[in-house]
Amino acid sequence: MKLVVINPNSTQSMTDKVTIAARAVAGDAVEIEGRTAHGAPASIEGHFDEAICAAHLLREVQAAETAGADAIIVACFDDPAIGACREIATGPVLGICEAGVKAASMIATSFSIVTTLPRSVPIIEALVRQYGLDHLCRRVRSAEIPVLALEEPGSNTRQLVRDEILRAIDEDGCEAVVLGCAGMSDLTEWLSRETGVPVIDGVTVATKFAEALVGSGLATSKIGAYALPNEK
Amino acid sequence: MKLVVINPNSTQSMTDKVTIAARAVAGDAVEIEGRTAHGAPASIEGHFDEAICAAHLLREVQAAETAGADAIIVACFDDPAIGACREIATGPVLGICEAGVKAASMIATSFSIVTTLPRSVPIIEALVRQYGLDHLCRRVRSAEIPVLALEEPGSNTRQLVRDEILRAIDEDGCEAVVLGCAGMSDLTEWLSRETGVPVIDGVTVATKFAEALVGSGLATSKIGAYALPNEK
Amino acid sequence: MKLVVINPNSTQSMTDKVTIAARAVAGDAVEIEGRTAHGAPASIEGHFDEAICAAHLLREVQAAETAGADAIIVACFDDPAIGACREIATGPVLGICEAGVKAASMIATSFSIVTTLPRSVPIIEALVRQYGLDHLCRRVRSAEIPVLALEEPGSNTRQLVRDEILRAIDEDGCEAVVLGCAGMSDLTEWLSRETGVPVIDGVTVATKFAEALVGSGLATSKIGAYALPNEK
Amino acid sequence: MKLVVINPNSTQSMTDKVTIAARAVAGDAVEIEGRTAHGAPASIEGHFDEAICAAHLLREVQAAETAGADAIIVACFDDPAIGACREIATGPVLGICEAGVKAASMIATSFSIVTTLPRSVPIIEALVRQYGLDHLCRRVRSAEIPVLALEEPGSNTRQLVRDEILRAIDEDGCEAVVLGCAGMSDLTEWLSRETGVPVIDGVTVATKFAEALVGSGLATSKIGAYALPNEK
Amino acid sequence: MKLVVINPNSTQSMTDKVTIAARAVAGDAVEIEGRTAHGAPASIEGHFDEAICAAHLLREVQAAETAGADAIIVACFDDPAIGACREIATGPVLGICEAGVKAASMIATSFSIVTTLPRSVPIIEALVRQYGLDHLCRRVRSAEIPVLALEEPGSNTRQLVRDEILRAIDEDGCEAVVLGCAGMSDLTEWLSRETGVPVIDGVTVATKFAEALVGSGLATSKIGAYALPNEK
Amino acid sequence: MKLVVINPNSTQSMTDKVTIAARAVAGDAVEIEGRTAHGAPASIEGHFDEAICAAHLLREVQAAETAGADAIIVACFDDPAIGACREIATGPVLGICEAGVKAASMIATSFSIVTTLPRSVPIIEALVRQYGLDHLCRRVRSAEIPVLALEEPGSNTRQLVRDEILRAIDEDGCEAVVLGCAGMSDLTEWLSRETGVPVIDGVTVATKFAEALVGSGLATSKIGAYALPNEK
Repeated sequence: MKLVVINPNSTQSMTDKVTIAARAVAGDAVEIEGRTAHGAPASIEGHFDEAICAAHLLREVQAAETAGADAIIVACFDDPAIGACREIATGPVLGICEAGVKAASMIATSFSIVTTLPRSVPIIEALVRQYGLDHLCRRVRSAEIPVLALEEPGSNTRQLVRDEILRAIDEDGCEAVVLGCAGMSDLTEWLSRETGVPVIDGVTVATKFAEALVGSGLATSKIGAYALPNEK
Repeated sequence: MKLVVINPNSTQSMTDKVTIAARAVAGDAVEIEGRTAHGAPASIEGHFDEAICAAHLLREVQAAETAGADAIIVACFDDPAIGACREIATGPVLGICEAGVKAASMIATSFSIVTTLPRSVPIIEALVRQYGLDHLCRRVRSAEIPVLALEEPGSNTRQLVRDEILRAIDEDGCEAVVLGCAGMSDLTEWLSRETGVPVIDGVTVATKFAEALVGSGLATSKIGAYALPNEK
Repeated sequence: MKLVVINPNSTQSMTDKVTIAARAVAGDAVEIEGRTAHGAPASIEGHFDEAICAAHLLREVQAAETAGADAIIVACFDDPAIGACREIATGPVLGICEAGVKAASMIATSFSIVTTLPRSVPIIEALVRQYGLDHLCRRVRSAEIPVLALEEPGSNTRQLVRDEILRAIDEDGCEAVVLGCAGMSDLTEWLSRETGVPVIDGVTVATKFAEALVGSGLATSKIGAYALPNEK
Repeated sequence: MKLVVINPNSTQSMTDKVTIAARAVAGDAVEIEGRTAHGAPASIEGHFDEAICAAHLLREVQAAETAGADAIIVACFDDPAIGACREIATGPVLGICEAGVKAASMIATSFSIVTTLPRSVPIIEALVRQYGLDHLCRRVRSAEIPVLALEEPGSNTRQLVRDEILRAIDEDGCEAVVLGCAGMSDLTEWLSRETGVPVIDGVTVATKFAEALVGSGLATSKIGAYALPNEK
Repeated sequence: MKLVVINPNSTQSMTDKVTIAARAVAGDAVEIEGRTAHGAPASIEGHFDEAICAAHLLREVQAAETAGADAIIVACFDDPAIGACREIATGPVLGICEAGVKAASMIATSFSIVTTLPRSVPIIEALVRQYGLDHLCRRVRSAEIPVLALEEPGSNTRQLVRDEILRAIDEDGCEAVVLGCAGMSDLTEWLSRETGVPVIDGVTVATKFAEALVGSGLATSKIGAYALPNEK
Repeated sequence: MKLVVINPNSTQSMTDKVTIAARAVAGDAVEIEGRTAHGAPASIEGHFDEAICAAHLLREVQAAETAGADAIIVACFDDPAIGACREIATGPVLGICEAGVKAASMIATSFSIVTTLPRSVPIIEALVRQYGLDHLCRRVRSAEIPVLALEEPGSNTRQLVRDEILRAIDEDGCEAVVLGCAGMSDLTEWLSRETGVPVIDGVTVATKFAEALVGSGLATSKIGAYALPNEK
């Protein structure tokens, strides 16, 4: 089985990070291929970055299809252009927000999300509502850090994320925390240990859910809105 | 006041049509400029087309800003990349689905939507739910016509749209109908006459609502998620 | 075009204020006529006042119809008897809560509302939910001032409203604020300047939206629940 | 205990009917007093009638209070001005729609409502949503009869209501039916027998629920929005 | 009329308490029989206790049926196995959470719930959402006391509950409070006096609502999901 | 990794069937153990059966824990007592309805569910709403077959299920179908081939999702409502 993890921004270190996260959990027979949306913004911070990355992301989806991908993971918590990816993919396509919050809803009665910048909060709130889990999501929180600060060695970002998780547990009464950025995937274990709460990384669970869907014989439905794009 | 109507697909005849529709209702002191998202798909039929058109649409938004637009109308019923447009615009930005259904909710206790292709139905349903009007929307219907068929002189598309509206009135018990495609804007008056129900064209009402917001001294909020994109 | 702004309470100074607010934004060809619901309570503070004002308000709607109104604005944030007004009006009828929150949803991803008395909070919450925008409304707040205190020259009400808006920005993380009382319409510009957030006056936007609907050729649907009242 | 049943329209025969329905189920120690909103429309068919009846209804509520009412039932399925009644009442106030649908939700997993005229359908749908039971309400149906036709001896209205109930069972798969008009209260038993489904009359259950609330020592909360109207 | 109040846990003192609460409000012609689910957990604190008590509770329902119960009240705020009880009962079956929150919604525009342990909070939140009243429920709060502490004479539990109610009034702005445990039923009057807010005991209102449904001639619908269990 | 699939009814042939389904998709390193809730009803058809099976199911969960289960799948589409199972399990616990509908939402914009008996329809509707996917679920349908008929060789049940799926595609416009009973798991492939739509078996996807959660290092959160049951 071949899973392609696409980083929809153009920062190679993030691609490396999410590829490592995916490989760490993938089954023995699963090949993980990481791809970078070259030409996309260096990070996805808001609606504009999300819209601009779409064409680059979709080019990588098409490349992944050509390369025989069995499923595709889009490694950005804004779940950019997921519907579009599904139209041109044959296997399942998973965004990491969708995977993260659905996983959370399977192991806890409530969860909070900790993301990077405040401007992403309403975007994530809208996604959670679209996925139908707003009644279980206590709060979407921001650790007030730019996405790329997560890539800087020696920065204090992991402490900021941890502190926000501790506030989530204390103030929101949540039973699990979903990390609201692909760039946090390398912090998952450390954050779980430090906070004592299940900390969910979307890249990890999206990889495993994609594997699960493929293993179940399921692919994207092609009889409706996810059919191949119409010829003009 | 200068309003820019952007057709996010690359079909010039649709740009002409929506520009005419906007001009027909714009105030005396309002200049309407139509712009085409050259390079975008010839029509927006599904998630993929919508995602692909985004960069082209946003380039036109930036051009409109440079040209001094007071507000921007995005003339496609899938409301593509509206949040992204709002980040880079200073004035208000309106999609025609949002404008259309909000107008409908002001003049009727319920409405149905008639769009072109079945594959657009779930996209529009998701938009209506996002705008909070799913409880007033009786049904999203498709007249089963490709978008570009609306551009072909002599086609029977207007009859197909009329017949679907008549079915909506009869089967859904709706009190108004919103046209679910910018390419139907030239049919509005004829459809109203033929069906006896208020028929709402999103291009028309988006133009007038944009004018209304500007006239109210309102612009897109820049203190949160619609702030200018972050520098990287 | 003739727009009639009806103050559903009996306080002439409020009628004057909302008429001024409407005239300030109305188009050149638009005549604004203010009308007072003589006999109604001096202010609408709760369900009882709202119910009692209805007959007086409806009498003014009928007078406005006779006088050739193209559209009607009901200038009270509780949107009293709007459905009833729509039954006897031919043109569009807009309440200022509906107009205010729908305008807010077009320029911001979230908003809070600042009204006068705590007892109006659940009434407004119910309206916002009815309009389908509860997921975007961060909080309905009260500045704890009686409606008529807004009419007293020299009172500190404008400071109280400003302070509540500042708390809304700080505590709610909202991106826009809707003024929850027609009597605040003269404060809009000052509040915007003082707080740095888009401040939305329902009278202003209802006037412009009414103009927009008429300009779009739309009138209240008469084929269903808004048909003329049944003869007995 | 004294319960006052107020018919918010001016048709005495309907007052008599609902008073009989209430007396038929009231406890031994319960006095039922029927009151008519003289001056109100002869029937409540739509938003306008509902708004116009309010002042007359509220006058009767005040009279009932003076007469020592322990609780008040408003016998119209549009639940007119219930919040206003609650502000000036000391005991509980119940509308028959609220009582009817809440009773239905206690004995069945789903229900449909059969009302008189099509124009009442969206009004009732909005009420059911406000009461939070739209997910259990299969459909609001109209038997297409004017309210006052229910008062005409020898009319075929009972057959029309029965037939609509049979369609509800067949087409909606509902497990109970709520009668959507106070004027149907005398048909309840017959309709239950004829259709084999629990048929719920709002007047009956509102009377018993009002008795239940008073018997529980509960009265309308006076610490918030249902406090006595403000002095001006 | 015979009403059977079943305590679904095995603590006799709680059965006695809820039986006293029911008798205190039952009509003269109403016989109240208390039953204990011997073999069930000593208290219901969470999903496991709730699931385990079910068989014991259902055995008591069957016994109550045999003994001629006209209606059944299940005296635990988690409303355990209510659907199952309804399948084997002929008369109405009411849980005290459902009765409590529906009563609250009839006398106040909003309410909060005060329960015992934090672990019950998400269970009650899910119930309130299932009953459709989450939009009126300000908050579900825990007084952080084990259920059986309510049975210990001389404990400070009543003070803890009172203090949590006072916080609910202050912080939530609620207009009524529902007691979130059957074991609090003896505190209702004292808590109302101490806090000045309507305090609603589910046992009390469930008893009266059950009486009301029976008095209205209503029984559990047997034409759908509440039909007698299928023979195997 | 050891996954335990518990059939909460007492029919061994169903346990065998679901164990086979799970083994068919489990990873190489995954041991599947099937367990039967001996003493439970022979099939789960409604609320009563569901409540009665709980204690037997929980006994098997405890046995599975003792035997070192890494995760547990409850193989009944009513998702009986899942919260209770989660309290006493250390690893993840998945019901097949939850897994089935969440899988459907990842590969299609809408789905319908085909279950056995009409009486299960409202139970499943309530589950889907609790999982937050009612806006994507077109309809819950019944093939009108008793659960155990699925176990009878030579019965026409597979044809009945296929025909209902074909009706779902035609009438509901759904893009995927979820099988609403564990006893249908052996029909999945055949039904997919016959109908041309993705057919989702909850047992299959629950097995793979459980594997995925364990593989992601996730377990049931123990800091809140899913903590171990309280000692009494």
